[in-house]
Amino acid sequence: MKAAIVVIDGIGDRPLKKLGSKTPLEAARRRNLDYIASRAINGLLYPVAPGIRPGSDTAHLSILGYDALSSYTGRGPFEAAGAGIKVKPGDIALRCNFATVDDNLVVLDRRAGRKIPQEEKEVLEKVINEIELEEAEIIFKSTLDHRGALVLRGKNLSDRISDTDPHVEGERIKKAAPLDKSKEAEKTCEILNEVITTAHKKLKTLEINKKREKEGKKQINMLLTRGAGKAPAYQSFSEKYNMKGACIATVALVKGVGRFVGLEGIEVKDDASITELGEAALKTLEKYDFVLLNIKACDDASHDKNPERKIAAIEEIDSMLRIFLEFIGENYLVLLGDHTTSCSRGDHCAEPTPIAIAGPEVRVDDARKFTEREAAKGALGHIRGSEVMPILIDLLNRSEKFGA
Amino acid sequence: MKAAIVVIDGIGDRPLKKLGSKTPLEAARRRNLDYIASRAINGLLYPVAPGIRPGSDTAHLSILGYDALSSYTGRGPFEAAGAGIKVKPGDIALRCNFATVDDNLVVLDRRAGRKIPQEEKEVLEKVINEIELEEAEIIFKSTLDHRGALVLRGKNLSDRISDTDPHVEGERIKKAAPLDKSKEAEKTCEILNEVITTAHKKLKTLEINKKREKEGKKQINMLLTRGAGKAPAYQSFSEKYNMKGACIATVALVKGVGRFVGLEGIEVKDDASITELGEAALKTLEKYDFVLLNIKACDDASHDKNPERKIAAIEEIDSMLRIFLEFIGENYLVLLGDHTTSCSRGDHCAEPTPIAIAGPEVRVDDARKFTEREAAKGALGHIRGSEVMPILIDLLNRSEKFGA
Repeated sequence: MKAAIVVIDGIGDRPLKKLGSKTPLEAARRRNLDYIASRAINGLLYPVAPGIRPGSDTAHLSILGYDALSSYTGRGPFEAAGAGIKVKPGDIALRCNFATVDDNLVVLDRRAGRKIPQEEKEVLEKVINEIELEEAEIIFKSTLDHRGALVLRGKNLSDRISDTDPHVEGERIKKAAPLDKSKEAEKTCEILNEVITTAHKKLKTLEINKKREKEGKKQINMLLTRGAGKAPAYQSFSEKYNMKGACIATVALVKGVGRFVGLEGIEVKDDASITELGEAALKTLEKYDFVLLNIKACDDASHDKNPERKIAAIEEIDSMLRIFLEFIGENYLVLLGDHTTSCSRGDHCAEPTPIAIAGPEVRVDDARKFTEREAAKGALGHIRGSEVMPILIDLLNRSEKFGA
Repeated sequence: MKAAIVVIDGIGDRPLKKLGSKTPLEAARRRNLDYIASRAINGLLYPVAPGIRPGSDTAHLSILGYDALSSYTGRGPFEAAGAGIKVKPGDIALRCNFATVDDNLVVLDRRAGRKIPQEEKEVLEKVINEIELEEAEIIFKSTLDHRGALVLRGKNLSDRISDTDPHVEGERIKKAAPLDKSKEAEKTCEILNEVITTAHKKLKTLEINKKREKEGKKQINMLLTRGAGKAPAYQSFSEKYNMKGACIATVALVKGVGRFVGLEGIEVKDDASITELGEAALKTLEKYDFVLLNIKACDDASHDKNPERKIAAIEEIDSMLRIFLEFIGENYLVLLGDHTTSCSRGDHCAEPTPIAIAGPEVRVDDARKFTEREAAKGALGHIRGSEVMPILIDLLNRSEKFGA
């Protein structure tokens, strides 16, 4: 038996007046979603806990069975993992911008013109990775546009350090300063400040900057850092559940969470269609015991406050799910949202999202629709993100007995 | 958007044979309660946790989002706050009686005749507050009849100290003794014992006692203390939720909880009618973002084992709620009980109480009545007191995101 969790990102919503007090999910045509719900045990999922408004990272961590409330230190480590860095427990991960500063280190452009050509990015990445320090290893990856992820790896480092990014233009860059009185924070600041100084020296003499000057482009002569986070020590997914698992996502942060906990990252195009994503998930299950598939479209539409586009995305997902109908005869499929995203608020909310677990031996209940309010009638009741995997692992007959 | 929590104190009950196995709430006429429930998301509320039989203080603390299970040290600090003392974290608060003792410090009357005229109370209050010690500040307030609240304020004090009140008449007063081996407890006992000795010396020579002797009244010559509690360090309501909040209550202990967490205490007459209380709450919401209104009548009737009076109180509250119907078009109204109070047991019980959250964007569910058993069908499921404020804050679009 295999298992798939299809995360319909941001699927839940609040009732909207313009939809006659229905939610987009209630208003959408749901042929396969309802079919699956009617063959499932249904419930409502608090991704983290009641009243907690989750981010994508904390929600996915919880759904994969990791205790975000006690372990989350910020998005840094997951973004770094999403960028392709093999982040290890204890690593300090920072989010970075390449920026333009003047001779007095005053920030002229926090994004150094934003778009940076791929060949320049490769040079920049090489330059930062060549920085050698005694106290820590420096690992850097360029990501989208002017952005990047920086990892400091060494003994006794701390994430209790301030940003070097002044967050506004026209101000001088800041020195990283300890946020507590620990030796670790002091040491980490020294390391980071040396990285920044060295990076600045190396960057300003680069050939690509001479070329940019000629072209009238902004200099890429500073690395700004923010949001330091210490990578938590998680048991890997395969150890925790004794299953070979994979993750499919188009969003870097979700990819990062998957890689961070040791799920194999299955490559898909950033603009893969919902059908292509579904097919990739089923294909992955030929080789893996477990797959988590994240489908982002509903969340994007909700952030844009566009319920019509959200409904269209739901209907596209609904059509795609046809290819999973055979799968649930022998295997387990979990449909859920990682959080509610309100089209009126344009952001994540704390309301629970529907969850349906379909498969050969679930206690099929009376819920006949995959909607927020029908799910409330399901036999699963209200559960939390961190309870999903234990429930699923047990349905797969893979759980350890607690007691005798 | 604003929010009101109307605490219908002790509203829940157990089914009563004499009501045909209905609860008082089920037996009452509920026009507005049911109307609000039918426009709300409903559920059952464990004020603290399943199986925990809450007091009014622990229930209100939980409902306001403070973790009573880990922080509660007794009612002392809340009673002192209710008496009007500005209690600070670390303060040791004690409940007190003025009492009559003989020359051997044997207690003749634990209440010194119970009723004490206002002018005498003022003298007594002054005398205790004039006690000066090197190690701690002494703050005292007279409350109802012979009762009072005493606060010891100083560094490194402990509430692990025994009562000086022998709790029975005919016994000698006790010396406060440490309940653990800490220096703090020892020091606090020394301070308290000195307060008691000094108070006794000062009280017995008071003019008012000479007058009482002539009138054949009992001497007020001793202060008995009990229930020492160290004031917990709570984040203030306004800091925690970034809202300007107020509390309306006729009960001193609930007033005290409100003041303790930094809610503005709105003055109402002790015998304010239910209509007056409701009107005061709506008026308060003109100036504040949030109000908690406690209505005590149902609880009083339940403690008196009087279901008929409880039904009458419910129906009076039901009528009053008419003035909130417009409010829920644009704002959030939470109806809940702080605990179940059983008319057969005559005391608080652990059963959950109905909760209804009405307002512009809630997922209105199928529950059509505000009763214990209808609430069980609501889409909110079973929640805990400490989850109420996070859920409400999120509906108000004021919650912080956890993660990215």
